[in-house]
Amino acid sequence: MAPHLTERGLIARIQAEAAGQAADLVRGIGDDCAVFRQAGGDLVSLVTTDTLVEGVHFDCRWHPPHLLGRKAVAVNMSDIAAMGGTPRFVLLSLAAPAAVEPTWLDAFLAGFLESVREYGALLIGGDTVHSGDGLVLSVTVLGEAVANRVCYRAGAKPGDVVLVSGPLGQAAAGLTLCQQGRQQEQAAWQPLIAAHCDPQAQVALGRLLAESGLVHAMMDLSDGLATDLAHLCAENGVGAEVEGAALPLTAELRQAAAACGAGPLDWALTGGEDYQLLLTCAAGDANALRELAHQALGATLSPVGRMVAGRGVTLLEGAVRRDISYQGYDHFR
Amino acid sequence: MAPHLTERGLIARIQAEAAGQAADLVRGIGDDCAVFRQAGGDLVSLVTTDTLVEGVHFDCRWHPPHLLGRKAVAVNMSDIAAMGGTPRFVLLSLAAPAAVEPTWLDAFLAGFLESVREYGALLIGGDTVHSGDGLVLSVTVLGEAVANRVCYRAGAKPGDVVLVSGPLGQAAAGLTLCQQGRQQEQAAWQPLIAAHCDPQAQVALGRLLAESGLVHAMMDLSDGLATDLAHLCAENGVGAEVEGAALPLTAELRQAAAACGAGPLDWALTGGEDYQLLLTCAAGDANALRELAHQALGATLSPVGRMVAGRGVTLLEGAVRRDISYQGYDHFR
Repeated sequence: MAPHLTERGLIARIQAEAAGQAADLVRGIGDDCAVFRQAGGDLVSLVTTDTLVEGVHFDCRWHPPHLLGRKAVAVNMSDIAAMGGTPRFVLLSLAAPAAVEPTWLDAFLAGFLESVREYGALLIGGDTVHSGDGLVLSVTVLGEAVANRVCYRAGAKPGDVVLVSGPLGQAAAGLTLCQQGRQQEQAAWQPLIAAHCDPQAQVALGRLLAESGLVHAMMDLSDGLATDLAHLCAENGVGAEVEGAALPLTAELRQAAAACGAGPLDWALTGGEDYQLLLTCAAGDANALRELAHQALGATLSPVGRMVAGRGVTLLEGAVRRDISYQGYDHFR
Repeated sequence: MAPHLTERGLIARIQAEAAGQAADLVRGIGDDCAVFRQAGGDLVSLVTTDTLVEGVHFDCRWHPPHLLGRKAVAVNMSDIAAMGGTPRFVLLSLAAPAAVEPTWLDAFLAGFLESVREYGALLIGGDTVHSGDGLVLSVTVLGEAVANRVCYRAGAKPGDVVLVSGPLGQAAAGLTLCQQGRQQEQAAWQPLIAAHCDPQAQVALGRLLAESGLVHAMMDLSDGLATDLAHLCAENGVGAEVEGAALPLTAELRQAAAACGAGPLDWALTGGEDYQLLLTCAAGDANALRELAHQALGATLSPVGRMVAGRGVTLLEGAVRRDISYQGYDHFR
């Protein structure tokens, strides 16, 4: 028996055991959100939950409580965005040591509530418990969407273009800079720090893309392109090729990578926590979709590769082909 | 500033800051579940979340993983029961150390899924993350109810009879026996051990009571009668009197209390985790409600006191009156 669990293994085990179905359940375990029909009309409900653990997902030594509150919301909103949904209601379960500073908690809650409002949602419940050691933040977000416009992970086809909604690796670069205590070293690095400490979920863009009806498959990038695209491939029984030269990397990312002795491509492929959208569409629709995103929201969709027959994710760098499937962040690794 | 947070203080702070309202939100923070209208029909959605932390809410040294899985479900189902709702969907966020034993996890999941099925619900999503140290289980349950039959904490009036749905203090007795390593000492104590390790949520009874239309206010007993009834009083701006002699205490509870040198009344009033229902109704309806519960489900509703004008919870023992408001379990104490 494996001494260490992988998140994929555990999810697969739960998925297999929980295989029962209800008539109004559209999608259970295995997508960004669970989806179920509402009693009347053409709306479905979306629900997602994510847990952040101190020392694993965040470090209070550099993460300001106000931004941590915002991030705890955003990482869940990103799952709603990935379905093309509208967030409605939020629940917060906060496990905190008894001695947590009231000023810390005030700032955390202020950031949390500010972010909930920015996404047009409402905090309606939760639970506060004592943790023996360290903070654990569990957030649940309920949303809704028009049933026949929801974007699932399933639906990608060979020949599809693979697009991402923004620069990759920014959050991983920011994390490395924070870990090395270099947050204040360069003004140019502030977008990297912000990408790690205060990520933005692409809710408006996700909804726009879903409403277009042109998206074949969509998910959010939380564990790095190499892992998340591998999930998308596995879900659809196909493969993907990623053009290394096409990955959207910012100048500040390359500069920080040089300063840290890190590889910008590693950050972009395996770093995780970018909370950009990863989507596929028919090759003939890619330009229309990019135009739509740009005109409506000023957003840039970058084509980074294509879906192909086969399995796994292959990185193309010039003539070199390399399998990068699942080379990302695994929460149990 | 208080060095230690209380759960009530934190909830009040969140409640005040999250005071925004949505048109379809019926009840936000402050009841057993949040309640919101569904798009069509006369149904409302219920949602509740509860977190269990290793070393705070459970102890793996004596809590078998299969029963812990069942309990993580039941404590949330109890909140659905307290509104008179029907549970539908469950989400599990599991934060576990990397080295958790696969056999432990298998047993936990088997118990969790078994319990979900017993309550007629379905596990539809969740999140698995690495915790630095110890298990943290966050469970969210979605349910539904007929809008005009939901039982809230608000609605109790002076003159109402206060009823509880089963014996009190059983779980506290069981916890003490486990802590003292006396689980196997007496066959007669097994119901106490079971009340702590494998509590049953009163979902069928809660729904029956709600459908009767006779209940004024209802909640579940998770923090002990002294605290939970004080919440009910505060919510309604009234007081309550509890007859010490009327509290339903089992013979095994009295026997275990004698063996442990504990007070059976302390267990019953302040122990917590009984997951029985606490409700009020008009004095003239109490017998009809008790008859209904007994005939339909074989359940025993015990009258334990009355709501009165004033504030706080007063225990009556013969001629002695004692304020016991909030003398229960506080998760941050």
